[in-house]
Order: sequence, then structure tokens, then C-alpha cells
Amino acid sequence: MLDVVRPATHVHRVRVYYEDTDAGGIVYYANYLKYAERGRTEFLRELCGDDYARMLESGMGFVVRRCSVDYDRPARLDDLLEVHSQIVELGAASLSAKQVVRREDNELVRMLVDLACVDRGGRPARIPPPLRQALEDFRANVG
Amino acid sequence: MLDVVRPATHVHRVRVYYEDTDAGGIVYYANYLKYAERGRTEFLRELCGDDYARMLESGMGFVVRRCSVDYDRPARLDDLLEVHSQIVELGAASLSAKQVVRREDNELVRMLVDLACVDRGGRPARIPPPLRQALEDFRANVG
Amino acid sequence: MLDVVRPATHVHRVRVYYEDTDAGGIVYYANYLKYAERGRTEFLRELCGDDYARMLESGMGFVVRRCSVDYDRPARLDDLLEVHSQIVELGAASLSAKQVVRREDNELVRMLVDLACVDRGGRPARIPPPLRQALEDFRANVG
Amino acid sequence: MLDVVRPATHVHRVRVYYEDTDAGGIVYYANYLKYAERGRTEFLRELCGDDYARMLESGMGFVVRRCSVDYDRPARLDDLLEVHSQIVELGAASLSAKQVVRREDNELVRMLVDLACVDRGGRPARIPPPLRQALEDFRANVG
Repeated sequence: MLDVVRPATHVHRVRVYYEDTDAGGIVYYANYLKYAERGRTEFLRELCGDDYARMLESGMGFVVRRCSVDYDRPARLDDLLEVHSQIVELGAASLSAKQVVRREDNELVRMLVDLACVDRGGRPARIPPPLRQALEDFRANVG
Repeated sequence: MLDVVRPATHVHRVRVYYEDTDAGGIVYYANYLKYAERGRTEFLRELCGDDYARMLESGMGFVVRRCSVDYDRPARLDDLLEVHSQIVELGAASLSAKQVVRREDNELVRMLVDLACVDRGGRPARIPPPLRQALEDFRANVG
Repeated sequence: MLDVVRPATHVHRVRVYYEDTDAGGIVYYANYLKYAERGRTEFLRELCGDDYARMLESGMGFVVRRCSVDYDRPARLDDLLEVHSQIVELGAASLSAKQVVRREDNELVRMLVDLACVDRGGRPARIPPPLRQALEDFRANVG
Repeated sequence: MLDVVRPATHVHRVRVYYEDTDAGGIVYYANYLKYAERGRTEFLRELCGDDYARMLESGMGFVVRRCSVDYDRPARLDDLLEVHSQIVELGAASLSAKQVVRREDNELVRMLVDLACVDRGGRPARIPPPLRQALEDFRANVG
């Protein structure tokens, strides 16, 4: 769902299964990065649909250059989580996103992710114009 | 190490980390398949070295067509396990392996894995002759 | 969704993300076992709801004793898959399921999974009566 | 190996297998966090041996409170990597580590990880004295 609030936020729901947990009884710390990527993917799919598919088919994609993660509270088996994604910066060939994993009213994990758009060979590439326009429109939609 | 017993067996050691376990306190059932593939990879690397590297570089590889897994006893955090691998069948373009995950004298998980040799496009391909010869020699080494 | 056909089948949809794929460009073979467990979990949740939650809270659960997997066709990045689950045997403390991962009309991966009901200590335990009744009703619903 | 240089650094070797890679042909970004945890675990095991085992048995452990990750260069299938770990801060109940994933002379991924020592219930706990002494000695060993 494209849940437009201030600032514009995309929400993707994630269920915690056994595969996500560890012997500490909580979600393993690396797995929140998986949830974040699922959130970013569904965000781009819902926002840009065919343009995003064409981008992938042409061999382009986004790679993570940097991320920082704050683990405030643990998630547990069978939790239903939400990944809230916002765009905080948009460049010609890059994108920064704030992503928060929530369980109801609680923020569990907060992430800042810097992404670069790259071509098939992994070289920096400009974000395709229709995708970039859609991202700008989404971000500007502050109500 | 190439631990030649009857029948010829390759042994690869694996340590259990948090990433491998789940909220039940044991190794997650899918992760034994990761251990098995690590064992097969090290087996081929130690047995065939450069020939295996050349095979990978040429875009060829082995894919799993079928596996069956018996889970007899669970492995736990910090366990030091051994993956024991044997060749049970060797065809022109295929290979069957028996793989057992052990902790000291106990068999924890037993697997039968059928592999097909494929080319870059995923089509069946003959196992390269030097690799096949090495596999045959290993298998015949019954002492 | 509880999609009752002959025989009774539960269907759970799964999207393929980068985390699921490997350098061969396809879904890594161990990850179909994750999809299968997600399918079983949603099956039990939809079929038995509160009874299943109570079972988990009491420390009981299902563990996999054996599985066999046939890999017929590969799944790829961004595929939308379905996990089709059927009960093929139902014992006092055990359950066998047939699970097929499909993409539209194609069967990609077929699994047979034997599960045991265990208590908090990992010992065999009878399936709680309300859960077992729900499983029997589901299975009998052959139309 | 405890490879003491300036500053004191622990080195743990990691091989890249199919399970670690994604359809982009490189190691999936979340998996470097797995490598880092393996490095920290082997660091503590080699440094503190029985004291670390006793700590785990008593239900205590380290949890990650924060991490930041810079992805400079990608690792690929079959790479042999090194995880270099250094202690940058040591508190009564916390620890900060710098961890770098290297391939030969290249830094691929650089991480800063803040860890908290917790008891069985997940509450902050003082690092056990023998473990803390060993960590201090290691860190002071600047040659």
C-alpha cells in the first residue's frame, strides 16, 4: 500500500518465520536488512511498476553503498511487522532512504540506506527519467 | 582433508553460528543444505583444484535435481560439525552423493543428493574429463 | 486463502527477492525449504488460528523429520510463486505434507515433508485435539 | 589466528559459497553481517576460550545495538575473504568493534559495530571479569 503521510511513506508488511529467528529467540540482526530490501523492492514496484521492471530487464539496479542500523527492540517469531520507507535524498544516480521496522506503535529497528544506481557492469548510472520522476513526485507528496 | 576410508569419504568441518540457528534453539532445517553444499564445494576444490576452477570459469556447474534429507538429531549453537561426503553414482553428466552431517560419533542429518552438470545456459553437459577422472579415482580408492 | 480443490489444497503466495537468489541467477536450492515452511505456517494459522497460537505458546511445535525435494524448474528474481500444500497422512503425533512450488501453470519444485509434533523439550507429543480435528476436516473436504 | 599488529587485530577467514551470493553475482549485502558475527565469535573463542563458553552457558551474550556498514567493493563466489576485527571501545557492559572484510590487499566492506552484554532475559549485564580482562589485554597489546 502507498500510505502517504508527512513525509510520504511506503509501508510493506512482513511476517516473522522460523527462518528469520536465531537461538536467542529473536530475529537475527542481519535479517532486518532483508526486510528492508523487500520494502524497497515493493516500494519501487508499486510506485514505478513497468518502468522498474524495464530497468531490471536492462540489467540496471540499485546497490547499497552504505547503511547504518539502530536496533532498539527485538522482533520475535510470528510477529507481523511493517517496513516504513521514506526517501530522504534523491540524486542523479543515487538515493537515500530512511527505513523503520515497526510492530504496531513501536519502532524496533531504524535504518539509513544509501543506494547507487548501477548498470549491468556495476558502474554508476543515472536513474532512468520515468523512475526518477516517480520518486520525486512521491517525495514531494507531503500534503 | 581428503580422509580416505571405505568407501572413500571427504570430510569438511563446519561451525554452527547464530545465523544457522532458529528460535527453537537448533539449526534451522534448510541450513543443513548449505552445509552440504559447502562440503561438496570443498570436496571438488580439494580433489580437482584447477580443473574445478576452470569449470566454474567456463560457466559450467552442478545443480541439484533431487535431494532427500533425514533429520535424526538436532545440531546446536557453537557445535563443531563434520560433513562427510561420498560419491554413490557417477554418470556422464550427473553425480549422486551421500552426505552425512556428524557431531563426533553421532549422525545428525543424512542426505542423498542428485546433481546434474549443466552449462552456462542451464542445459545438461558432460562432466569435463579431468574432473570426471578425478571423481572416479576418488571413488575407486576403496583401499 | 483456503483454496479447496481435490484434494484439499492450501495456497500461499511468495515473491522472490534478491535474498533468495544466488550467483547462478536462480533461487538457491535450500530456500525452497523456507518457502515450504512459510506455506505450512500460514496453512496452520488460517486453518487453526487461535489453537495454533496456543500450541506455540505452550512450547509445542512441528519439527521436520524427513523431506525429499525434486527440483524440476528454477525460479528467478521477482517471480511470484505459489506454495500448494496438501496433507497426505495424519497420525496422532505426526503429519505428512505434499508441497509444490508453482509459477502459474508450472510445477517448479515438489516436496514431501514428514513432520513430528514435539513438546517444549523436543519429545514427541500428540497433536492437540482441536488442531487435529481441523486438519482432519480440511483433509476430508474433498468435495 | 591471533594476528597482533598495531592496533591489535584478530583475523578470521571466510570462503564465499553460493548461499552467500545473489542474482547480481556478488555477495548479498546482509551476508557481510553474518561474516562479521563469525569473526567476532571466533575472536572471543580464541581470546577467552572457556570463559566465553561459560558466559554462553549462563545465558549471557552480546547483542548488536548499532552497526554501520560501508560497501566499497563487492565480493564474489569462491573468494577467500578475511574478517579483521579490532576493539575500539570497551565499557563495563558494552563493546565497540571495527571490522573490515578484506580480499588480499583490498578493503571490501568496513563496519562499526556496537555491542551490549545482556543476561538471559535480554537486560544489560556487566561483561564477566575474566572476559573483560582478556579483551583489555588484547586491546592494549599495541606492541
